[in-house]
Amino acid sequence: MDFDFEQLPPEDRYRLLCSFVAPRPIALVSTRGATGTANAAPMSFFNVFSQDPPIVILGIQAKPDGTEKETMRNIRRDREFVINLCDMPLAQAMVDCGIGFPDAVDEIALTGLTHAPSQKVAPSRVAEAPAAMECRLSQIIDYPRRAIVLGEVVQMHVRRECLDDQGRYVRADVYQPVARLHADNYVVCDRQFVLKASEELKTGS
Amino acid sequence: MDFDFEQLPPEDRYRLLCSFVAPRPIALVSTRGATGTANAAPMSFFNVFSQDPPIVILGIQAKPDGTEKETMRNIRRDREFVINLCDMPLAQAMVDCGIGFPDAVDEIALTGLTHAPSQKVAPSRVAEAPAAMECRLSQIIDYPRRAIVLGEVVQMHVRRECLDDQGRYVRADVYQPVARLHADNYVVCDRQFVLKASEELKTGS
Repeated sequence: MDFDFEQLPPEDRYRLLCSFVAPRPIALVSTRGATGTANAAPMSFFNVFSQDPPIVILGIQAKPDGTEKETMRNIRRDREFVINLCDMPLAQAMVDCGIGFPDAVDEIALTGLTHAPSQKVAPSRVAEAPAAMECRLSQIIDYPRRAIVLGEVVQMHVRRECLDDQGRYVRADVYQPVARLHADNYVVCDRQFVLKASEELKTGS
Repeated sequence: MDFDFEQLPPEDRYRLLCSFVAPRPIALVSTRGATGTANAAPMSFFNVFSQDPPIVILGIQAKPDGTEKETMRNIRRDREFVINLCDMPLAQAMVDCGIGFPDAVDEIALTGLTHAPSQKVAPSRVAEAPAAMECRLSQIIDYPRRAIVLGEVVQMHVRRECLDDQGRYVRADVYQPVARLHADNYVVCDRQFVLKASEELKTGS
């Protein structure tokens, strides 16, 4: 089937894009509100895009009434945020952080998670997250109802057992991230496999 | 363990970012060379970021010698590309397209894949791909050895059996995308599960 994106309504484009550009890694983004209240929200319009500089990108939609979500207001004001990565023990709390609570609610505390201090930025990281990246705002690309946020990773925390003895390589038997597909569908990386380029094609190149 | 990204060498940042920001969706990006030769390369610094406008983003690294990859040169020149999405039947060819072949090589043909004409852009889509998005270049953010490419999806092709009878919703039993983790590790979405926000927290919000 062919879909003309220049004619298709935005909600149909959204459904198709979320259904087929998948699975998407999940950022549980923690920020600090104007009055100091912690905020956390899950986002899957997210990925890493560069290591030099170390750039991650988020796509943050406006609320249905057109105003900005708390996460976006906090990032614009303080130019800092933390991206917590998610595995199965964190999955239900991550999804619950996506409920549209009032600004005064601390989603980290409400969902039973624990604040841990960051090294270089004000927002907390989530103590239960297997890994967390402290980010400073690099650039915002604004559309009428969507902001694309480029952040530079300044500090990264990884739970010790997720890395090998030398602290260099990830242990795939320990770090098994959860990712988002369409609607409420998710996948967990508990059955990873190795795929290499064909030797006969490599030698011919 | 804590890693100071302002001190850590780029290759160590790369290893950590690729290990923990995962699984990443895969774009098999097809472009057309200056002489008309087709080009295809897999990229996992990729995701969707907006539906209105419909924006996808790629992070394309320079070659080890500092010059631009063919995909990037083609996008800069023609401002068009196609993103082919990948499932298991396409996985080995997708990985093989990542071998650094000379510019004159048509990776689609060499890996046994088939060209299918696009509707709105010059580069072919891959006939075997379960879905493909025709994109026009929106914006490039340039770093010394990395280009971040924002593309606007103008047309999308989806294989008929990946959608339900009404052609609206993805069939999770048919479309099972492959995603990238660290090194040569991959995951396939053949065991999706549903996770919903807790009812007691929703009613309290």
